[in-house]
Amino acid sequence: MKRQILTSLLIASLFSAGFGQRRIIHLPDLPGYVTLKCDFHMHTVFSDGIVWPTVRIDEALRDGLDAIAITDHLEYSPKKDFIPVDHNAAWKIDTAYARERNFILVHGAEITRDMPPGHFNALFITDASLIAKDSVWDAFEEAIKQGAFLQWNHPGWKAQQSDGIPRMYDIHKLLLKKGWLHGVEFFNDTEYYPLVFTMCKHYNLALLGNSDCHGIISEEYSGPANINRPMTLVFAKVRSHDSLKEAMFAGRTMVWFRDILAGKEEYAKPFFYQCIAVDRPYFSDNDNICFEVTNKSDIPFYLINGTKDAPPYINLSANSVTRIVLSRKVTSPLVYDVRNVLTGEKDVLKVELRY
Amino acid sequence: MKRQILTSLLIASLFSAGFGQRRIIHLPDLPGYVTLKCDFHMHTVFSDGIVWPTVRIDEALRDGLDAIAITDHLEYSPKKDFIPVDHNAAWKIDTAYARERNFILVHGAEITRDMPPGHFNALFITDASLIAKDSVWDAFEEAIKQGAFLQWNHPGWKAQQSDGIPRMYDIHKLLLKKGWLHGVEFFNDTEYYPLVFTMCKHYNLALLGNSDCHGIISEEYSGPANINRPMTLVFAKVRSHDSLKEAMFAGRTMVWFRDILAGKEEYAKPFFYQCIAVDRPYFSDNDNICFEVTNKSDIPFYLINGTKDAPPYINLSANSVTRIVLSRKVTSPLVYDVRNVLTGEKDVLKVELRY
Amino acid sequence: MKRQILTSLLIASLFSAGFGQRRIIHLPDLPGYVTLKCDFHMHTVFSDGIVWPTVRIDEALRDGLDAIAITDHLEYSPKKDFIPVDHNAAWKIDTAYARERNFILVHGAEITRDMPPGHFNALFITDASLIAKDSVWDAFEEAIKQGAFLQWNHPGWKAQQSDGIPRMYDIHKLLLKKGWLHGVEFFNDTEYYPLVFTMCKHYNLALLGNSDCHGIISEEYSGPANINRPMTLVFAKVRSHDSLKEAMFAGRTMVWFRDILAGKEEYAKPFFYQCIAVDRPYFSDNDNICFEVTNKSDIPFYLINGTKDAPPYINLSANSVTRIVLSRKVTSPLVYDVRNVLTGEKDVLKVELRY
Amino acid sequence: MKRQILTSLLIASLFSAGFGQRRIIHLPDLPGYVTLKCDFHMHTVFSDGIVWPTVRIDEALRDGLDAIAITDHLEYSPKKDFIPVDHNAAWKIDTAYARERNFILVHGAEITRDMPPGHFNALFITDASLIAKDSVWDAFEEAIKQGAFLQWNHPGWKAQQSDGIPRMYDIHKLLLKKGWLHGVEFFNDTEYYPLVFTMCKHYNLALLGNSDCHGIISEEYSGPANINRPMTLVFAKVRSHDSLKEAMFAGRTMVWFRDILAGKEEYAKPFFYQCIAVDRPYFSDNDNICFEVTNKSDIPFYLINGTKDAPPYINLSANSVTRIVLSRKVTSPLVYDVRNVLTGEKDVLKVELRY
Repeated sequence: MKRQILTSLLIASLFSAGFGQRRIIHLPDLPGYVTLKCDFHMHTVFSDGIVWPTVRIDEALRDGLDAIAITDHLEYSPKKDFIPVDHNAAWKIDTAYARERNFILVHGAEITRDMPPGHFNALFITDASLIAKDSVWDAFEEAIKQGAFLQWNHPGWKAQQSDGIPRMYDIHKLLLKKGWLHGVEFFNDTEYYPLVFTMCKHYNLALLGNSDCHGIISEEYSGPANINRPMTLVFAKVRSHDSLKEAMFAGRTMVWFRDILAGKEEYAKPFFYQCIAVDRPYFSDNDNICFEVTNKSDIPFYLINGTKDAPPYINLSANSVTRIVLSRKVTSPLVYDVRNVLTGEKDVLKVELRY
Repeated sequence: MKRQILTSLLIASLFSAGFGQRRIIHLPDLPGYVTLKCDFHMHTVFSDGIVWPTVRIDEALRDGLDAIAITDHLEYSPKKDFIPVDHNAAWKIDTAYARERNFILVHGAEITRDMPPGHFNALFITDASLIAKDSVWDAFEEAIKQGAFLQWNHPGWKAQQSDGIPRMYDIHKLLLKKGWLHGVEFFNDTEYYPLVFTMCKHYNLALLGNSDCHGIISEEYSGPANINRPMTLVFAKVRSHDSLKEAMFAGRTMVWFRDILAGKEEYAKPFFYQCIAVDRPYFSDNDNICFEVTNKSDIPFYLINGTKDAPPYINLSANSVTRIVLSRKVTSPLVYDVRNVLTGEKDVLKVELRY
Repeated sequence: MKRQILTSLLIASLFSAGFGQRRIIHLPDLPGYVTLKCDFHMHTVFSDGIVWPTVRIDEALRDGLDAIAITDHLEYSPKKDFIPVDHNAAWKIDTAYARERNFILVHGAEITRDMPPGHFNALFITDASLIAKDSVWDAFEEAIKQGAFLQWNHPGWKAQQSDGIPRMYDIHKLLLKKGWLHGVEFFNDTEYYPLVFTMCKHYNLALLGNSDCHGIISEEYSGPANINRPMTLVFAKVRSHDSLKEAMFAGRTMVWFRDILAGKEEYAKPFFYQCIAVDRPYFSDNDNICFEVTNKSDIPFYLINGTKDAPPYINLSANSVTRIVLSRKVTSPLVYDVRNVLTGEKDVLKVELRY
Repeated sequence: MKRQILTSLLIASLFSAGFGQRRIIHLPDLPGYVTLKCDFHMHTVFSDGIVWPTVRIDEALRDGLDAIAITDHLEYSPKKDFIPVDHNAAWKIDTAYARERNFILVHGAEITRDMPPGHFNALFITDASLIAKDSVWDAFEEAIKQGAFLQWNHPGWKAQQSDGIPRMYDIHKLLLKKGWLHGVEFFNDTEYYPLVFTMCKHYNLALLGNSDCHGIISEEYSGPANINRPMTLVFAKVRSHDSLKEAMFAGRTMVWFRDILAGKEEYAKPFFYQCIAVDRPYFSDNDNICFEVTNKSDIPFYLINGTKDAPPYINLSANSVTRIVLSRKVTSPLVYDVRNVLTGEKDVLKVELRY
């Protein structure tokens, strides 16, 4: 009894896709804070990127971000035969564009030197041109004078560290001593540097993850695997530029890239518990108790090393309700390691499911 | 300064996609009710479908439904040379399967006759075999005896109504007179019947929308346009079989298909306001006030016919924040028609945005 | 007997996606000619586009094109506060880039005036700066002096023709009289202008279809419907810049946009027959003859108005083999209209399937 | 000069997707042979599958296959409470369905025993019921009597071989001695068994790769990675059932799964050269010669271990033209290993690019 197919006149695509709307990313807030989704490292035609600065805001809105910094290289201007060097150009072009869109734009620039010290983003600055100094130390000094948050970029980038291992040189230690280094990229583009976690803990620095995008975000972060763009999650008091800045200096950050979340346990633990809800058992008999765990977030959680007699691993898919069949033999607390929530160079988050 | 690409060892797809998880559909509840997502019309190999009954539950979980009814034809068994006729087979096979998965299975069957009266689903029955009677009236009587909710299927199906216009014949009026008709399909597969809206209002019947799927859900409702499967939204007191049944008989339903939502205004209006939130202005000057409208649901809303001097139309994309730039010339309330929320045969929902 | 899932160590994505490769578009050549896939209208940061000129070549290679022209506006330079006006900039930047990639770059510019005469692309020029004259007629004259092919862009664009109907003004007639107008855009971005077909036939002009892209090709031409970018097909003697130019002036073009192919019958007919192959019957009995039609191209063909007793319509999907069950009652030739191959303002291609 | 967007009335989706069409897979033939794309292992509701037998043909046509065998288990009928056991049911249901669609259906059944001997598909049989014997040897004997091609299924399946290593037991050796074993699955579902390559070479058996699908092909072989279903390529004299059978017994097969192709060198080498074409140099200077390699097939080729001074690896993407920049320092033949074309347990194909 094959159905006759009659295509009714429906109204799909009556309206265009909605230029400039901000997608909702499903990530929870922490108690007392709002979670801002940020990318603090990207380029435009004003250094070695290939897009106009407004593109970076359009991309960010479409991807659900709250804030970006455009960080064109101060020392590298390969398009200067066609575009005169103006280190504040992207900022000038995007300031009003961001404000009209209720979007937070952070004024930034990339100090681009050989290792040591490597590359640094100066964020929350007021005039990038003044930072373009011959001496890197002068550049640091000027940035700090402007109130900058200094972010060490991709410290294990093989083009600058052939073995891929981040190293603290004297100049980094001097920055630390003066309190001028505020954060380090744990994740950049397709790379991450486990050792950075130890650095950030030891020196009390913010953990950062950024795209460092030179090309087109939608072409680099989609494809068959449909990977989200990397982002730094910042726990700010309110959704504003100044509150974002305060949170960054206070180090209240986590990093999300692919299906991995990384952050200090003091943030990772409450964040995980805000993402999930364990419901009351819906069925039980002599052998088993069945209950559901709801993961309201866009991040999957891979639970491994389950308590004795419990399921050895559980995949809490993003935006899904997962059923758990628990043997009555399990009497101790139901604890797991969350394989994809990193809390240290070699540590993952440990959680308990209370049903 | 092209980035060196180093593919780190990430853990994507360490775990499988999570067999049997229930996706979260982002639709709000109404005050005092929980919104159950349901499909009350589908087939299996036990009539003219092509899949085993458990497939229907796996599909429904993956698609985020709370309840389904499998409604194999009582009078049409094209596979009987290979499969002996058992009108309760799908129910027997799926009962435990549903319970283990915390999924609501409604016992159903399709009474399949020429027009009049056409096809009817008997839902919430206890024994489909007893309903397989020679006389359609005997079938109705037995269904009602079992406590059935009687749903008139695709009343404008051209194979039975060559002009596509639903018509009440004497037998339908007799059903109505006895209080035996409880709902009508407004949407079925790819068809919808505007006139059904008027019928449902006039006779106080539940509006229903179902897939009537014979094939494979993921192949029929995805494709280039990535259309969601049609569903009946039922506003139940709690998430349970009995509460679902109570809500159905009380007519607390809406229908969602493609990007269209349909339902009586008493449900459509509060549902819309639960989906959206109008935020306080983030920017204003002498000419304009700028504010954001958040649509937390998976349904886009197409606003048209705006108040004088306001934007004539606004697309509140699903799961998105939309910015609205409002001229200060607008002093009357900001009202719109919601083009894709149908509240009658020729009516759409009227809403006001209070900023 | 559920299968155990063991993910073998496979090598997918061992290598990156292959920067700079040219995708093969499956379109046939015409006897004696090679089919070049071209887009003769697009913008960069050097006028009101948002990408660097090399992006246009990268996009074109990925999409399988053989040739493009970058046609930045001569009279519209909204980025001039940041980028000094140089009408040849994109050409200078892309010349070597194209040559290294075996890609044909056509030197172009868009003469951008109010209607009349509207917008014109000058193609195959030698110095765009010389064409930037105050008087549009001086601009035309200089372009022609450089050997330009003059293409009238989007003649029914509502921003310039409020009723959307292309009109020949005196200046257009003068161009025609002097032999200075060589082609007209039948398709531009999301618009097409049926009347242009009649113009092109009457005045013997080339029919053209282009993207007029200002943004990012992969974002504008993909999405849910996965629409290919529009292109002009040029039937050239060989795959070279000069041969392309000769073919353009000779008017040997067709236009492909979405699932529509448009062109004069002298090209459309042999092109269709190069796309398909009718195989010998694989089955027949007293009632029917069954045979297959292979469509080797990336364009679907929608056949309608079939001969009496034949299937009334046939969808020859792209890259597919379609089975046809033909009644023995059909004795006349099997002819169809190809609904999506336009050969005139109101005409579609008529074809015969010889089985 | 942002473009006005006017959605013209286009005709996309005027016609449905074309039920029953066969997609073209772009794979070349070998000289003297036609390449048939086949899957010789799958299940339906008549054993432990979940779909009706016609679904398997619809799936195969859509995926571009030429032939399948449905191989329901002879000894495992978990649905027998609802479906009486008939080992020929799928064959009876699909025979006419296949013929009408010009599709090759191979009569098959799976002999399903503990290891040893494990599972075997009997292909090209005439009556599956007669093969359902208590003794596995009797089953083999009857299958051979019917002219069967005997295929040993997933010999390293961990459910039967806990270490995953295929082993020849006495019964296998006896089969070999009698000439009753004709092929072995090198690939099954998501597993492959390198050792099988050595077995097939040593005993002169056909290498086979199949889906062993129990569920729904489009759900198992698509997803984020968009993986094609596994298939056995058979080099037959013509596209017919009997020619397929002849080719299978002659061992003229290769296996394609994910992005891996596997087969004996005598087939793999000419197959590779039929897929690619090396074009004449399009550019050269004192340092380099630039030429293009066209890969006309749907299989990418990953070339590694390039000749000294040549590019160390080249990714010849599927359906793409790849540019190669070759240093003039290279004077020896340009040879590569093709990383994803397996010609033995530990061997990959070696090729030369002649430009």
